[in-house]
Amino acid sequence: MTTAGRTLGELARLVGGEVRGDAALPIRGLAPLDQAQPGDLGFVSGGRYRREAEASRASALVVPLDFELPGRPLIRVAQPALAVATLLRVFHPEPAPVPGVHPTAVVADSARVAADATLLAFVVVGAGSAVESRAVLHPHVVVGERCRIGEASVLHPHVVLRGDVDIGRRVVIHAGAVLGADGFGYAFDGSRHQKIPQVGRVVVEDDVEIGANVTIDRATLGETVIGRGTKIDNLVQIGHNTVVGADAIIVAQTGISGSCRIGNRVVLGGQVGLADHVTIGDGAQVGSQSGVHRDVPAGGTALGSPAMPAAEARRAMAALPRLADLVRAARALERRLARVEERLGQEKP
Amino acid sequence: MTTAGRTLGELARLVGGEVRGDAALPIRGLAPLDQAQPGDLGFVSGGRYRREAEASRASALVVPLDFELPGRPLIRVAQPALAVATLLRVFHPEPAPVPGVHPTAVVADSARVAADATLLAFVVVGAGSAVESRAVLHPHVVVGERCRIGEASVLHPHVVLRGDVDIGRRVVIHAGAVLGADGFGYAFDGSRHQKIPQVGRVVVEDDVEIGANVTIDRATLGETVIGRGTKIDNLVQIGHNTVVGADAIIVAQTGISGSCRIGNRVVLGGQVGLADHVTIGDGAQVGSQSGVHRDVPAGGTALGSPAMPAAEARRAMAALPRLADLVRAARALERRLARVEERLGQEKP
Amino acid sequence: MTTAGRTLGELARLVGGEVRGDAALPIRGLAPLDQAQPGDLGFVSGGRYRREAEASRASALVVPLDFELPGRPLIRVAQPALAVATLLRVFHPEPAPVPGVHPTAVVADSARVAADATLLAFVVVGAGSAVESRAVLHPHVVVGERCRIGEASVLHPHVVLRGDVDIGRRVVIHAGAVLGADGFGYAFDGSRHQKIPQVGRVVVEDDVEIGANVTIDRATLGETVIGRGTKIDNLVQIGHNTVVGADAIIVAQTGISGSCRIGNRVVLGGQVGLADHVTIGDGAQVGSQSGVHRDVPAGGTALGSPAMPAAEARRAMAALPRLADLVRAARALERRLARVEERLGQEKP
Repeated sequence: MTTAGRTLGELARLVGGEVRGDAALPIRGLAPLDQAQPGDLGFVSGGRYRREAEASRASALVVPLDFELPGRPLIRVAQPALAVATLLRVFHPEPAPVPGVHPTAVVADSARVAADATLLAFVVVGAGSAVESRAVLHPHVVVGERCRIGEASVLHPHVVLRGDVDIGRRVVIHAGAVLGADGFGYAFDGSRHQKIPQVGRVVVEDDVEIGANVTIDRATLGETVIGRGTKIDNLVQIGHNTVVGADAIIVAQTGISGSCRIGNRVVLGGQVGLADHVTIGDGAQVGSQSGVHRDVPAGGTALGSPAMPAAEARRAMAALPRLADLVRAARALERRLARVEERLGQEKP
Repeated sequence: MTTAGRTLGELARLVGGEVRGDAALPIRGLAPLDQAQPGDLGFVSGGRYRREAEASRASALVVPLDFELPGRPLIRVAQPALAVATLLRVFHPEPAPVPGVHPTAVVADSARVAADATLLAFVVVGAGSAVESRAVLHPHVVVGERCRIGEASVLHPHVVLRGDVDIGRRVVIHAGAVLGADGFGYAFDGSRHQKIPQVGRVVVEDDVEIGANVTIDRATLGETVIGRGTKIDNLVQIGHNTVVGADAIIVAQTGISGSCRIGNRVVLGGQVGLADHVTIGDGAQVGSQSGVHRDVPAGGTALGSPAMPAAEARRAMAALPRLADLVRAARALERRLARVEERLGQEKP
Repeated sequence: MTTAGRTLGELARLVGGEVRGDAALPIRGLAPLDQAQPGDLGFVSGGRYRREAEASRASALVVPLDFELPGRPLIRVAQPALAVATLLRVFHPEPAPVPGVHPTAVVADSARVAADATLLAFVVVGAGSAVESRAVLHPHVVVGERCRIGEASVLHPHVVLRGDVDIGRRVVIHAGAVLGADGFGYAFDGSRHQKIPQVGRVVVEDDVEIGANVTIDRATLGETVIGRGTKIDNLVQIGHNTVVGADAIIVAQTGISGSCRIGNRVVLGGQVGLADHVTIGDGAQVGSQSGVHRDVPAGGTALGSPAMPAAEARRAMAALPRLADLVRAARALERRLARVEERLGQEKP
């Protein structure tokens, strides 16, 4: 695929957009509004970027359907972000991996590696594991025993699947993530913490993406599950036996304790903490830095530490700066009231 | 060791429990109540799981001493969690490591590796380090200079001991943990942050367990210490010169700054932050997401950010949702009081 | 360089300090006050350590200019912390790396490695990358494609530069850090989260230090930048397209979302969270565990979640323990006022 010689019309067809202006206009690349040069295509996600759009040196712009910019060549689309996702891949195609096993890779005799999979330098694959078609294991990936890496999944450098980890198709796991380490479980025997062996699995369904240095623990017994299409940001922690649904979004540094149930399309902001055994219903949204100790219903919201419904939390947070004054005001009221009571000769309660 | 052919009576003996029902009943495995099949042994940690116990398809149950379930075979024990820890190991024995040094491992001439230690693929051991009897270094472990890994300790893939790290006996360190990186210390010279060299050590005592992607920094001078039997969850940060006592529990994503003193049997919940030079007394408990800036006495509690004694914090947290109404209520009281004062012809203060 | 035979006078000259007492006194090493032995030099950062200084067995002390300790040999300096930084390097000189490429390293044909650079065991350097003079890549470092590691920079074990990462001179990156993983960007198409390709770069300027297991994401387009001299502690997350200025301090476990602008000499405490597109002005200070959703002006402060100016936040935090009593007090006032109103025969509002 060549990235030269694209025209505005060709690009509009690729994203299902309508052209305003010269469809034959050559486009060289994609750039943010403020960094775009002549030859570049800029992009505008909404009306509030009108000023930046007018000032941009971009030769043409991807804009929402209702966006006008007289005299400028445009591609108008329903959702600019989706169009940009497509166009980025047009101008920055991912290089196709070269299938094969690097001579330094160490693959157990009982492991099965598809002929068109890619294992790069110093990869280790343990006994009983399978690497399926078109999967890519970048340098230093360690796959333990009894794992599966599904079709076209990509494990970036230094990813560790400790053992008993099942990865679906088209999954992306970024560098340094650790899946399948022991869950955090101990029983105190009166003098020591005795380890509860963690012998369960981790299951990651299709189309999941997992960030750098994330940790997802294996179940004590049974499975820790990340549902289809869910996206997990960097440095997130997911405890043993937790089940995350489909198409959830979990932002960086959030920690989910053990045995939680996270529904489909849930959004957890950054640095959220969930106590163990908490259930978050489908489509619920939890604000950044919240500490959630109770279940959140489907479609519900949670915010604050401890978390409340978001509207309630926002009211409390907005009032917080007035708290110190309120303490003073209450004292003043008490003094005034005492004077009134005295004047009335009324005994205090 | 075979995992087939165990009877209920044999298992009861292993955990010091009493059998109710047929001691000859064959048991095939252990399973959670809701996933158990005929042939499985389920487990019940307390009375609130009665309904799940009744509905379970498990052939028998491990239950607390006071738990009755007429007509079902039982093993009754004082602490089901301890019994389950034992039984998990019976049904899921850890494979014995095969001693020896993988041909790809790189071991410095001056390093000393016990004959019955296990060094797997791509392990690196630096000058002056020692790996003792029955220690296991999984693939890609890097041990720097002047380290010791004690008897029967296990370092999972990609663990890094940067240098001057002393690991005791039966320690488990999960994948991606980094011990002995430089502490975070600088002195501002008026124009730049000058690095304060970090030349101290990390000491990890016997029976400690350290989670995946944890970071424990070396001391500036002297030692950062993790005391015997302490358990540390994933993604925890421990700063330079901090000393953690014995049998502490530190839950995921907690951050301990430099020069802290954490007592024996302390429990720090998840995502806790400790300011530097803080002392947490023996047996103290700190709630999740707390921010601790002051010492907590032995046996004390801390909760909230900034942290207070837990009872005080819980009162404040419970009152927080009423804050916005309180602001309004105070204004209403003021208006009513002003009217009363006016009526009395009394001047306002 | 030998570390034996230093005298108090020689050491004083090295740090520009003045000697009190015998300049010929031999000094063997540096130690904290409470661990120092005869022959050691202790150090005192301020007047509040007087008692520890008096009790110390150190043969001599580094002290501030105004510090007196009659009868004890002293080196008096303007800034003891800077003097200690120098002296630590005197007594604990860093071993000079031995240039060369370890035979196990895998270097792409199109990569360029300076003759006096050091590549240790199992290092991987990708196509089109450059390792400059005196750079040190510790075991298991993975450098992707189109990266540069500048002069005298040090990458500790298991560091990953995913690709398109530019590292300046004298940069130190601690073990397990991941630079250049994909930013967290998706566009929802009505049924799925579509990935927005992340094709930008990471630029790390001279004299930056980056902690263990830190994650710094590549830009969507353009650059994520860490400015000259900035110091980043362990387990910090920095999102795509964020630009951090010069000489900033970012303490452990802080998370910076995408497209933030962090000024020069900003200090972010530990476990801080920044929402995306937030600007923190030059010299601003953000307290630990704060959640910042709005811009902070140059020289400003922020504290709390959600963050307020620090003075305001401290007032609210100080009043928080009184909130529960305040709710009760307001109710009592209402009752008393109602009685007064009744007595006056006045109708309630």
